Amino acid sequence: MLTEIRLTGFGGQGMIRFGYLLGKAASIFDGKHATMTQSFGPEARGSACSSQVVISGDRVLYPYVTTPHIMVAMSQEGYAKHAQNIADQGTLLVDEDLVKPDKTKKGIKLFAIPSTRFAEEMKTRIAANVVMFGFFTAVTGLISEESAKKAIKDSFKEKIIDINMRAFDKGYQYGKELLSKAG
Amino acid sequence: MLTEIRLTGFGGQGMIRFGYLLGKAASIFDGKHATMTQSFGPEARGSACSSQVVISGDRVLYPYVTTPHIMVAMSQEGYAKHAQNIADQGTLLVDEDLVKPDKTKKGIKLFAIPSTRFAEEMKTRIAANVVMFGFFTAVTGLISEESAKKAIKDSFKEKIIDINMRAFDKGYQYGKELLSKAG
Repeated sequence: MLTEIRLTGFGGQGMIRFGYLLGKAASIFDGKHATMTQSFGPEARGSACSSQVVISGDRVLYPYVTTPHIMVAMSQEGYAKHAQNIADQGTLLVDEDLVKPDKTKKGIKLFAIPSTRFAEEMKTRIAANVVMFGFFTAVTGLISEESAKKAIKDSFKEKIIDINMRAFDKGYQYGKELLSKAG
Repeated sequence: MLTEIRLTGFGGQGMIRFGYLLGKAASIFDGKHATMTQSFGPEARGSACSSQVVISGDRVLYPYVTTPHIMVAMSQEGYAKHAQNIADQGTLLVDEDLVKPDKTKKGIKLFAIPSTRFAEEMKTRIAANVVMFGFFTAVTGLISEESAKKAIKDSFKEKIIDINMRAFDKGYQYGKELLSKAG
């Protein structure tokens, strides 16, 4: 079982940190393997930022992502560029204030959250990526809540762990509520 | 021409940010292609952190690094784990206060800098990775000074660009002096 994930947004939103947290959580949890790849090319000239994460039971031999099973979009530009490549029956997560998902293929499961707004309400706009990471954890079920929190504890400096834990919980709870409403 | 680079240190030193700056500089400069890959596995359980960057004139088809031409080590653990794999005639850059390069193969070009100490003297310990990035730029010649600075401007928030530019310059000048002394 191999899951390909694309994380896209603009520079400064912490999409690479998101990928790092995700990869670390998956590798701590259940002995999975993970890679995160950042490709630079002409598209790196600008504010777009896109990371690719592959999570697998076995060693990852080919880390590039072409048709992600899961895509997270935190910018309209990132969404527009990659939306057509989401795998059939794939999952799309967006920041609903930043992305209008107007080109999404039929059959894609869409989950929306105001992650940046939530982070701003917590006076920590910079943690919008961690709110989204919590939301991702809840709606995809790909990594456990416990592993995700371990990854956060391992990856941030002591004094900002608490605020990031709260950002995570905010996104996680919102995701769980969405799922329970959806039945 | 393809150059493989391994960046190793411990979590919190910003080795991933280093890889990101390097990849961005190379891709802005001269139309090169670059990828950064972060592998997670058993070794991710701990404080070790290792990123791999491949820079090439063509698209990078295989982003894993096995025998890097250039290795940067900012922790003894990272050095000890990967030192034996540096390519023949390769280049090793170390933080001289943090790494004792006692297992380096013959024929490897060694460059040492007190990057963390320099950053502390500038009251910005967190920028030790950028001091090392400046040093890397000077001694390897792999990317231009101009591209490296562009990458810094593009990648940091406005208010911390200046301090990072100074951190870069510190490492860059130190590297240039080393080279001129070496003849």
